[in-house]
Amino acid sequence: MAFRAKICLLFLFFTSAFLLSPSVTVARRERNADVIVCQLKCEKLPGDEQMSCKQTCEEYHDHDREHGGSGGGGHGGRMRLKVAGNGDVGDFGKGQQGSNNPYVFEDRHFTTRLESQLGNVRILQKFTDRSAELFRGIEEYRVGFLEAEPQTFIIPNHWDADALLCVVNGEGTISLINHPKSRQTFNIKRGDIFRVPAGISAYLINRNNHQKLVLAKILRSVSVPGELQTFFGAGGENPESSFLNAFSTEVLEAAFDANRDELQRLFFGQQMQKGVFKKATEEQIRSLEESRKWPFGERKGRNGPYNVFEKNPSVQNENGHMHEVDSNDFSDLRDINVAVSFFNITQGSMAGPFYNTKATMVLLVPNGEGQFEMACPHLAEQHSRGSVGGAPSYEKVSSRLSRGTVVVVPAGHPVVIEASGGNQNLEVIGFGLNSHENEWFPLAGRDNVMSEWEDEAVELTFGVPARAVKKVIQKQNKKMFFKGPERRGQAFA
Amino acid sequence: MAFRAKICLLFLFFTSAFLLSPSVTVARRERNADVIVCQLKCEKLPGDEQMSCKQTCEEYHDHDREHGGSGGGGHGGRMRLKVAGNGDVGDFGKGQQGSNNPYVFEDRHFTTRLESQLGNVRILQKFTDRSAELFRGIEEYRVGFLEAEPQTFIIPNHWDADALLCVVNGEGTISLINHPKSRQTFNIKRGDIFRVPAGISAYLINRNNHQKLVLAKILRSVSVPGELQTFFGAGGENPESSFLNAFSTEVLEAAFDANRDELQRLFFGQQMQKGVFKKATEEQIRSLEESRKWPFGERKGRNGPYNVFEKNPSVQNENGHMHEVDSNDFSDLRDINVAVSFFNITQGSMAGPFYNTKATMVLLVPNGEGQFEMACPHLAEQHSRGSVGGAPSYEKVSSRLSRGTVVVVPAGHPVVIEASGGNQNLEVIGFGLNSHENEWFPLAGRDNVMSEWEDEAVELTFGVPARAVKKVIQKQNKKMFFKGPERRGQAFA
Amino acid sequence: MAFRAKICLLFLFFTSAFLLSPSVTVARRERNADVIVCQLKCEKLPGDEQMSCKQTCEEYHDHDREHGGSGGGGHGGRMRLKVAGNGDVGDFGKGQQGSNNPYVFEDRHFTTRLESQLGNVRILQKFTDRSAELFRGIEEYRVGFLEAEPQTFIIPNHWDADALLCVVNGEGTISLINHPKSRQTFNIKRGDIFRVPAGISAYLINRNNHQKLVLAKILRSVSVPGELQTFFGAGGENPESSFLNAFSTEVLEAAFDANRDELQRLFFGQQMQKGVFKKATEEQIRSLEESRKWPFGERKGRNGPYNVFEKNPSVQNENGHMHEVDSNDFSDLRDINVAVSFFNITQGSMAGPFYNTKATMVLLVPNGEGQFEMACPHLAEQHSRGSVGGAPSYEKVSSRLSRGTVVVVPAGHPVVIEASGGNQNLEVIGFGLNSHENEWFPLAGRDNVMSEWEDEAVELTFGVPARAVKKVIQKQNKKMFFKGPERRGQAFA
Repeated sequence: MAFRAKICLLFLFFTSAFLLSPSVTVARRERNADVIVCQLKCEKLPGDEQMSCKQTCEEYHDHDREHGGSGGGGHGGRMRLKVAGNGDVGDFGKGQQGSNNPYVFEDRHFTTRLESQLGNVRILQKFTDRSAELFRGIEEYRVGFLEAEPQTFIIPNHWDADALLCVVNGEGTISLINHPKSRQTFNIKRGDIFRVPAGISAYLINRNNHQKLVLAKILRSVSVPGELQTFFGAGGENPESSFLNAFSTEVLEAAFDANRDELQRLFFGQQMQKGVFKKATEEQIRSLEESRKWPFGERKGRNGPYNVFEKNPSVQNENGHMHEVDSNDFSDLRDINVAVSFFNITQGSMAGPFYNTKATMVLLVPNGEGQFEMACPHLAEQHSRGSVGGAPSYEKVSSRLSRGTVVVVPAGHPVVIEASGGNQNLEVIGFGLNSHENEWFPLAGRDNVMSEWEDEAVELTFGVPARAVKKVIQKQNKKMFFKGPERRGQAFA
Repeated sequence: MAFRAKICLLFLFFTSAFLLSPSVTVARRERNADVIVCQLKCEKLPGDEQMSCKQTCEEYHDHDREHGGSGGGGHGGRMRLKVAGNGDVGDFGKGQQGSNNPYVFEDRHFTTRLESQLGNVRILQKFTDRSAELFRGIEEYRVGFLEAEPQTFIIPNHWDADALLCVVNGEGTISLINHPKSRQTFNIKRGDIFRVPAGISAYLINRNNHQKLVLAKILRSVSVPGELQTFFGAGGENPESSFLNAFSTEVLEAAFDANRDELQRLFFGQQMQKGVFKKATEEQIRSLEESRKWPFGERKGRNGPYNVFEKNPSVQNENGHMHEVDSNDFSDLRDINVAVSFFNITQGSMAGPFYNTKATMVLLVPNGEGQFEMACPHLAEQHSRGSVGGAPSYEKVSSRLSRGTVVVVPAGHPVVIEASGGNQNLEVIGFGLNSHENEWFPLAGRDNVMSEWEDEAVELTFGVPARAVKKVIQKQNKKMFFKGPERRGQAFA
Repeated sequence: MAFRAKICLLFLFFTSAFLLSPSVTVARRERNADVIVCQLKCEKLPGDEQMSCKQTCEEYHDHDREHGGSGGGGHGGRMRLKVAGNGDVGDFGKGQQGSNNPYVFEDRHFTTRLESQLGNVRILQKFTDRSAELFRGIEEYRVGFLEAEPQTFIIPNHWDADALLCVVNGEGTISLINHPKSRQTFNIKRGDIFRVPAGISAYLINRNNHQKLVLAKILRSVSVPGELQTFFGAGGENPESSFLNAFSTEVLEAAFDANRDELQRLFFGQQMQKGVFKKATEEQIRSLEESRKWPFGERKGRNGPYNVFEKNPSVQNENGHMHEVDSNDFSDLRDINVAVSFFNITQGSMAGPFYNTKATMVLLVPNGEGQFEMACPHLAEQHSRGSVGGAPSYEKVSSRLSRGTVVVVPAGHPVVIEASGGNQNLEVIGFGLNSHENEWFPLAGRDNVMSEWEDEAVELTFGVPARAVKKVIQKQNKKMFFKGPERRGQAFA
């Protein structure tokens, strides 16, 4: 049995049956990613059960399509280059676009953990629940969002996960309880990143009168990989919402040296305002804010926030810019092994193609509209073609991007992010997971990888004189951010 | 489908069917943890087989209960606080107490690896064999005990695991063979912790004439996560007990430059005393002890033992005290990523509630009797209640503690340890697994987390004036160790 | 249920049924490792399905044997020592020899990733595909070979894995593209080890006119544990062999600021020479070689290669020698956590028995013929024998070694490597995976572990005077490399 291309797409299992019929092959490529994920799960079964399991996935999908379950439509429509003398490779995009591919997560992949009229906490499903195979390398990480209405307080709690917060919108104040007898308070604003270590209890307030406070979070579980638990000591929705309620009355009486009536009134009384989000007065907010009287430099304990916008852009031109922060800039990123990039792409422009060497990048879209395309390798079906030199081949994975979309870009995978179809710049936050020693490389434009090849390497690779290649490769002289297809069309129109 | 609360307890899967009948819900909560663990295993199957798999677990359990398999009874009896106006939340303790919950391990969860009249080695089952989900984060670690009668020698061997030994009782001498041409010998006594790196061969002797030598061990596998192998070169129960026996005769002859008769006589001869535990003479013991003539400071190579009692208690009052040792105190703890705590709780007193921020704590009871209670989160069934703001809720997990009980307390989980029902102090050794950067926080008494909240945070959380809350929270002025329900009752009686 | 000896061999599940019939037990031991691996897979199923799953494995095997499927024969023939008064233990070697045991990998366990008349890249199957249980600790690592004919160029590409290359044969030149605007070129020759970090694109040339260039590779995946993807930007077998082909035409036009005809001609044109291996002219080779004009010391950026032969042998005598390189010698080994040993064993001689304390050693045979034997522990069936002191016992695992054989030796497992049956020295490259803090210990000859035991420890272990033991143990005065059975036989003949 040939090497199995579990990664990306499992076409290997199907194409062999349809080799003589390219059109069928293309049709197969359109089937949605649920089938692919389903079949990845089959891989866990003993070998002899795998094929029938996979067949079941397939049949289920066919049924689904006949009944209109697979969506379809979509904006798609872009073509890929025709192969000289080889017929049209076709546009596989349709099937892999939108929410049907395993690298793209949308609203429905989030679970609302906490919710009230004053705010909510939403956590993205475990990556490995989407695909146990594809995302095993990032299974410890989770993605979440917190939204709080103006003048809203979030009551103290701790998590069994290291958290990296990124302020997407608004301004607030966060307080951490350290041990023993120490508290730190920090004002946070848009662009701030901030670490809350596992087990450290914290409370938070949206101190703005008008703006929502929106935080994006990367969480790294410390106990069970990928599982998250929150711990509230008091003040939740009902008595069971305090972990103190789990202890025997006698034990609580002894611990607090109090009687049960006092404790019951305090922790579980009906007079308690329900919920973890609380409306705060302006006076309370003023008291909870970070004191400006504190002389700078005297602050001890944990680091405060780091603002990504205060670091100069690493790349910048009229098509966009990016800020990059890693553990050399902000040491709090080291333990959680995450780096942060902030892309701002001019409407009609695009970033890339580029790739990361080691990190798996999780892209979040706080604002704007766009599109991403990613090249995803799978093994060439060399045996079936009877050819020598069967190199890997690559599929396009793509999706629309809009506020709230989450995309996973694995290490080594070339990607393009395009600001298109909207009327404002596209903002993208990139969390680089497992970012230790990560670098990124552009694949077109200035400083692209090919521009460093020696002439002889170019000639041997392309089979034409280096001069002819360099003419094409060196024409684009911008770095990383380029005019996208839309603006380019206008320019030439 | 809502976020699945795999963690702690899987009530989610059942309560939906019984929402209208609280009494049934409670009954369900009584079913034992075997069902829960069984159902966790079902999670590994493809989605469509999970429900029927889980149903099978359930049915098996019902059968078991009808035939009296589930034990029941127990001392239980403690109530939890009643919810104002909401009816009795009930006492779920019964079902989760004793040996039926996945966090508690007892005699029957150990396997005897080696045993003779002179001693035994017992290893706790793999944590992930108990629950693949709950304990995946500590799957590399194992827990073991070694007991040796007075004047007993344990023959040289090596393991494919890093070991941290803790002398629970008695005194001995251990020798490590380093390479090349070096041996280190250390006397060890109660309270000593000591590292034996993976692959380093060692022998051990109980040099006391009267006392048993008892070691608790934390082992961290270096080869297959959670799997342990021991390697004996000579002197075991039968010829197959030497790894040399696995080699061809010709190879052994060549290696030792000896003939087969010599080798057979030496390694596999009938005259050999059987077993890995050997009775030693007083003279042999004296020769094997650590030489006192060695000038201090000349010792080279690996570290000797560190005695936990020689470090001052980090907390101490008339209700108990604790010694804490981490890798800052004893660098040998760094690689194995374990910290050690030793609790001594006065009979009738208790420790906590407290929690660890990052470490999963494994508690072992060398002496005494008691009880533990732990708050264990699971996700509120928010959808079924039709309410907004569904915060997590918490179950009580509890068990009796007695000599040999092992309890796992995950990171973030509040816990109380109580010395009760016995006539001596309760001793508890806490091994903090994955202890890098771990801290612990008290949840009641002096320095408790709530005492650091600002007044406004207190008011917003509790919905009553801070003064009223602080009156209760600050009443207990002891730290960590308090009078327990029993002594408190006496005081007031 | 007793502790399950998942590791090594699962005889536990069978012997209980055949206790009264030793001959049957021996027969069982002969069955091939496919059954064992099959049964290891059964372990993933729920408990109640495991036994029947395992039974199926067994029946399949019986069928196989009856129809001659299990090979058999083999050279085997070596006996193990007879047990005094206990009957012949038999020779289990037959069943575990050759390609049937899970620790040995041969040609058929490799997949050809790339192949043409000019060269090929072959990757060993995932260790965990062979045995998910045994090799979970090394699942991130893969083994591969690259072969290139004289004057052959391998076009630029990057991998989602850190690679450690070892030049087994020939000489070449490798160029790495660093960022931004930097390229490094190194000449490499037999014995060189060299690191190519994940995501760094590189090209390679065999600059010799006559010799094949052969590289052995250890790859450590950075994305999905054990999965490897290669990324080619241009120049592969067909248009789909460039990751650029996965992007929309419009996006590529925008990225390169070029029109589709130019791009199509360049990247996907028919005039392109196919394949990733290209024939180079002598002139091209001269241009691609590392420049000798570069003043030494000025080189910046990544480390160049380290030649294992330039380090003095750590052990050397007329029976063989070994070179050892770890991260203290060559810091590039640290991140990938691999150490490298090179054994050269004189024909008719042997190395060991010895074991590694922490590393799992992967042995590759670049040249020569031989044999290896390894002691593999499994738990004694103590209960069935009704005996006390049931220590572990050990099986022999063995195999022929020839060019291309790959053997995995887990931490702690004693092993002997023998140069036999050929007419040249046996060369073995040992990659120590997870080598942090690894040491190795000899079990016979000079400096062997037993030679460091105190006399009293020797007496207690063997039950005879230390003098009698030392006479045997200290007779062999060579270190590590000894005359093997063949030469020894000649010497005495």
